[in-house]
Amino acid sequence: MTFIEKLNRRWASSQSLLCVGLDPDEARFPAHLQGKSDSFFQFCTAIVDATAPYACSFKPQIAYFASRGAEDQLRDIIAYIHENHPDIPVVLDSKRGDIGSTAKHYAKEAYERFGADAVTLSPYMGFDSVEPYLEYEDRGAILLCRTSNKGGNDLQMLMVGDKPLYQHVASLANGPWNKNGQLGLVVGATYPNEIEMVRSLAPNMPLLVPGVGAQGGDIDACVQAGITADKTGMMINSSRAILYASQGEDFLEAAREAARVTCEKINQARR
Amino acid sequence: MTFIEKLNRRWASSQSLLCVGLDPDEARFPAHLQGKSDSFFQFCTAIVDATAPYACSFKPQIAYFASRGAEDQLRDIIAYIHENHPDIPVVLDSKRGDIGSTAKHYAKEAYERFGADAVTLSPYMGFDSVEPYLEYEDRGAILLCRTSNKGGNDLQMLMVGDKPLYQHVASLANGPWNKNGQLGLVVGATYPNEIEMVRSLAPNMPLLVPGVGAQGGDIDACVQAGITADKTGMMINSSRAILYASQGEDFLEAAREAARVTCEKINQARR
Repeated sequence: MTFIEKLNRRWASSQSLLCVGLDPDEARFPAHLQGKSDSFFQFCTAIVDATAPYACSFKPQIAYFASRGAEDQLRDIIAYIHENHPDIPVVLDSKRGDIGSTAKHYAKEAYERFGADAVTLSPYMGFDSVEPYLEYEDRGAILLCRTSNKGGNDLQMLMVGDKPLYQHVASLANGPWNKNGQLGLVVGATYPNEIEMVRSLAPNMPLLVPGVGAQGGDIDACVQAGITADKTGMMINSSRAILYASQGEDFLEAAREAARVTCEKINQARR
Repeated sequence: MTFIEKLNRRWASSQSLLCVGLDPDEARFPAHLQGKSDSFFQFCTAIVDATAPYACSFKPQIAYFASRGAEDQLRDIIAYIHENHPDIPVVLDSKRGDIGSTAKHYAKEAYERFGADAVTLSPYMGFDSVEPYLEYEDRGAILLCRTSNKGGNDLQMLMVGDKPLYQHVASLANGPWNKNGQLGLVVGATYPNEIEMVRSLAPNMPLLVPGVGAQGGDIDACVQAGITADKTGMMINSSRAILYASQGEDFLEAAREAARVTCEKINQARR
């Protein structure tokens, strides 16, 4: 089964378009989980179990692990998801981008070492920097297109002819770059008009949409802008607003409730 | 001392513009170094000692370590360079790029965990994705501008108004983004005309120039295109052509000789 097939099945079985982002920040963990050697594993797997009913995917952000030297815990968390929630795809958020000979090593890192179903990539170095990932035919690669941060304007909104750069990225990803149908696009929730534009350029492509929750994107507007004809096509990511809904002993109930409410808000907008 | 000061001093003291790239690929190590648990450390530190007289900087490529779970060896190699060759700056080649809250973690990874003097970054997500690195005022950040791979054309050569995208990146990096003078640019050796253009847009900025050696860039042309008024300003990188000059027992002599010859070729072009 390919990443896209797995995602399609999960969208259908879960009735959820919510991607739960795993950005473990120990200072925000409940007190009883702080200071343990496997605190990231304990926290993230507990969050995974609590939120799984409302999740179409999980998205660990590798930087949070890399800054702490916690790669082994990242590997174990992804293995835990595959074992305990085998129908939920895992997107490793790492935004890599390098020449082909180096990209092979990053692909090996994401898919073999960590066992991710898909990875996020930067398009700046072009197609041959994406190609080595596509050799793993059962995996996916999700390219940065229009990002949710303020600085996203700096390059992505530069006009190339009569269209901003991000639209060229969307057209390349949906066209010549998408040889085996393995690609998706990252489009920030903070720009619903641009989600709509990307959806028109890539009618069936999975969109990973960060920026609801802590970053403040409007769920209604972004769902209506990005939904496909069959009412799926989006992984709407929330990380901090779910993970740190409470820092008390009730953090799992609070995370579950935040996931349930977000999933439900998304589903109301789908109707 | 800042990264730029350290680099300036090293350019002056070494009379070298050669950056030795550390891309450890165990299958290409001499037989006696294969199969050891610390083979990356053994190989890279031996190469460092052999080539240091001809090096203005070292550039480990993190993907080669990440694909093997060898982060501890990367950390130890960089610490070894700082201890044994304290005047030679280390550029960690990782091409990160993410929103500010995540970039903080990547900056911590590069500068605190690994102890790098500078890091390579992708500009696609804009200035706020670069800003957290600049809070480390003694370190440097080197932005992808015009890359040496074939796919570098795909986005970087798109015309924004009357100039290709990479020139906008050069102008941003040399202008509003370069608040504390910590930035440099990556410009591939395979495009000397474009090195010249970047140099005209960023007259004093350090350029990291990959693509000589295995990738086939012309040293003469790229030196003449990129040299600053004081005949420095470039880190011309060679990785595989030095590291794997021989796979026999004489690999260190071969690497040293390859570094010496490359350094000398660069210096002939500087005159």
